[in-house]
Amino acid sequence: MALLKRKSDVIDASLKDFLPPRGSSAYAEINDYYEMLWDYNLRGGKRLRPALVFFSCEMFGGDSSKAIPSAVALELMHNFLLVHDDIQDASELRRGKPTLHKIYGEGSAINAGDGLFARTWSTLNANRKLIGATKTLRIFKEFAEICNYTVEGQALEMGLVRKGRWDLSEVDYYKLVELKTAHYTTTYPLRIGAIVAGAPAKDIKAFNAFGKPFGTAFQIQDDLLNLVGEEGKYGKEIAGDIYEGKRTLPLIHLFRKCNAKEREALVSIMNKPRSEKTEEDVQLVLTKMKEKGSIDYAREKMTAFAKEAKAIFEKKFAHVAENDGKRAIKLLIDYVVERQV
Amino acid sequence: MALLKRKSDVIDASLKDFLPPRGSSAYAEINDYYEMLWDYNLRGGKRLRPALVFFSCEMFGGDSSKAIPSAVALELMHNFLLVHDDIQDASELRRGKPTLHKIYGEGSAINAGDGLFARTWSTLNANRKLIGATKTLRIFKEFAEICNYTVEGQALEMGLVRKGRWDLSEVDYYKLVELKTAHYTTTYPLRIGAIVAGAPAKDIKAFNAFGKPFGTAFQIQDDLLNLVGEEGKYGKEIAGDIYEGKRTLPLIHLFRKCNAKEREALVSIMNKPRSEKTEEDVQLVLTKMKEKGSIDYAREKMTAFAKEAKAIFEKKFAHVAENDGKRAIKLLIDYVVERQV
Repeated sequence: MALLKRKSDVIDASLKDFLPPRGSSAYAEINDYYEMLWDYNLRGGKRLRPALVFFSCEMFGGDSSKAIPSAVALELMHNFLLVHDDIQDASELRRGKPTLHKIYGEGSAINAGDGLFARTWSTLNANRKLIGATKTLRIFKEFAEICNYTVEGQALEMGLVRKGRWDLSEVDYYKLVELKTAHYTTTYPLRIGAIVAGAPAKDIKAFNAFGKPFGTAFQIQDDLLNLVGEEGKYGKEIAGDIYEGKRTLPLIHLFRKCNAKEREALVSIMNKPRSEKTEEDVQLVLTKMKEKGSIDYAREKMTAFAKEAKAIFEKKFAHVAENDGKRAIKLLIDYVVERQV
Repeated sequence: MALLKRKSDVIDASLKDFLPPRGSSAYAEINDYYEMLWDYNLRGGKRLRPALVFFSCEMFGGDSSKAIPSAVALELMHNFLLVHDDIQDASELRRGKPTLHKIYGEGSAINAGDGLFARTWSTLNANRKLIGATKTLRIFKEFAEICNYTVEGQALEMGLVRKGRWDLSEVDYYKLVELKTAHYTTTYPLRIGAIVAGAPAKDIKAFNAFGKPFGTAFQIQDDLLNLVGEEGKYGKEIAGDIYEGKRTLPLIHLFRKCNAKEREALVSIMNKPRSEKTEEDVQLVLTKMKEKGSIDYAREKMTAFAKEAKAIFEKKFAHVAENDGKRAIKLLIDYVVERQV
C-alpha cells in the first residue's frame, strides 16, 4: 500500500540511526548480537504501528518528523514482542525467513528480544530534545502501559493453551485481542502521535474507543490470513495458529457450532502439542471450519468491527478538519480489512 | 547482614506496592501470571542493588524515601534478568526454589520476565511526583544504559559458550564482568542514588571508577561461591557454572596453567552440553582447579579488587563528610568479599 510504503521508508532509514552500528564492538560475539537486531528489524514488515503514529500526529497538525523516535521505538517494541512470541509459539517462519531462535538458538533469541526492549527505551530518550520533558515523560508512561497490557494478553493466551481451555466465549476472545493486540497495534500508536502533536486530552482519549474495534478488525484479519493466506505473501506458516493451538475467532465459532461429540474430537486435536499434530489433523479442523461457516462468520465480524471503527472515528473526530493525516487513518481502516500481509 | 536487612525490609514492603494486586484480574490465567511475579520477587535475595541506591542517596544528603521507586525498579530489573538468565542457562534452582521455567514452562517464564521489565518501567513513572521531571528523565536514561550494557554482556557470554571459545584472556573476562555484572550491580545503583540526592556531576561520574573494581570483586566471589559454597545457604546448584560452561576467573586461570594435553581434555569436558556432563566430569574440573591453585588465585584477585575499590572510594569521595550512607557503602565492600550468599 503506497500510503504505508512512504512511511515505512522513513522508518527503515530511522531504525538504522537507533540500532548499534554494525561491527562496532571489539567482540565478535557482541557484533553477532548487533547483526541479529539489524537482520530482524530490516526484514521489512508492514510498519503499520509507526505509520499510525505519524498519521495521528499529522491529523492534529503536528510535525511528524518529531514523532520519529516514538515511531521507531514502537517498531522496536513490536519486534521485541515478535521475537519472544516466536519462541513461545515455536514458530518457524517470520517475514519469510526463519525465526531468530531457529537460526541462533533460544537463549540468544531471548537475549536479542531483551535487547530490542532495551533499545526501545533508549530510543525514547531522544524525544527529550525534540519535544521537551513533559511530552517525553508522557510517552514513557504510554509505553509502560502498552507493555504491561501486552504481557498480560500473552499470559492469558498462553495460560489458556497450557490449561487446554476451550470454554472461552467470544467476549473473552475480544478481551484477549484488546490486551495482546489492539492496545499496541492501534490505540496506543494513535494516542502517542496525538501526544507528540499536542492534541487535547479529549482527542487522545477518543482513540481508546476507536482503537478497540479497529485493532479487533486487524486481529480477525490476522486470524483469517493465517488460515487462508498465501505463504509466499504472508511470510508465516499457513495454519500455524492451528498447529500452535491459538484461540482464534473462527475456532471459537467452530467450537460453538459443534455438538458434544464433535467438540470432543476437536479438543483432542487442538490440545495435542505442536510436534504431535499431523497435517491430517490440521486439514480436518480446516474442513470443519468451512463446513460450519466459521471463516465466513469471522469475515463478517471483521467487516462489522471495521464499520464500527469508521463510525466512531467520524463521530469522535468530526471537529477535526480534513487533512492528509486524517484521511490516511480512514484509508488504513480499509487496508486492515483488505490486506494480504 | 544487619545493614542490608534493614533496607531489604523497605524493599520487600515497597515491591508489594508496585506489583499488580494478587487476584485482581477477572481472568485466572492473568492472576497466575501475577502470582509468578509475587513468588519470584518475594523469594528474598540480598537486595544489594536497591541498598546501594539508598546508601548512595544518603551519602549525598538525600532523603532515601525518595529513592524508593528507583530502588524497587532496579530490583525488578534484576529479577527480570535472572528469570531469563535461568532459562538461557537451563538452571534449576534460584533462591532455594525451582526456577520459574521449571515450574511454569519456558514460554510463561519468558513472558514473566518481560512483565518484570515492563513493571520496571512503570515503577519509574512514580519518580515524577517524588523528584520532578528532570531527575525522572535522567534516571530513565540510566536504566536504558544499564539494560543495553547487560544485554551485550549476556550476548558476549552466550556467544563464547555457543562457539566453544576458551581462548579468552583475563582482560576479556573483566570486560565481560563489567558489562554483565558491574554496571547493574554496583556502578549504576550508586549513580542513581546520587542522582536522586542531587549530587554534583563529578561525584556521579566517580562511581564509574569505583563501581568497576567493586562489581568485579562481587562477581569473583560469585564465581567462588558457585564452586565452594553450601547449597543450603547459596540457593543455587553448587558447581552450576561448570555444568553451564560459564567463563569464570578460576576456570580461566586453570586453562592458563594447563599444558596442551590437559587443556584439550578440559575443553572436551567444558564444551559438552549441560545434559551430557557427568558428576565425574565436574569433579575432575574441581580437582584440577585445586591442584593448579585456581581457587586461591581467584580469591587473591577478589581481595585485590576489593582493596582497589576501597582506595578509589577513599580518594574520590574524600571531600564527602562521613555519614551513615558513606559508612554503609564502605562496609558493603567487605560484605561483598565475605558473603556466603
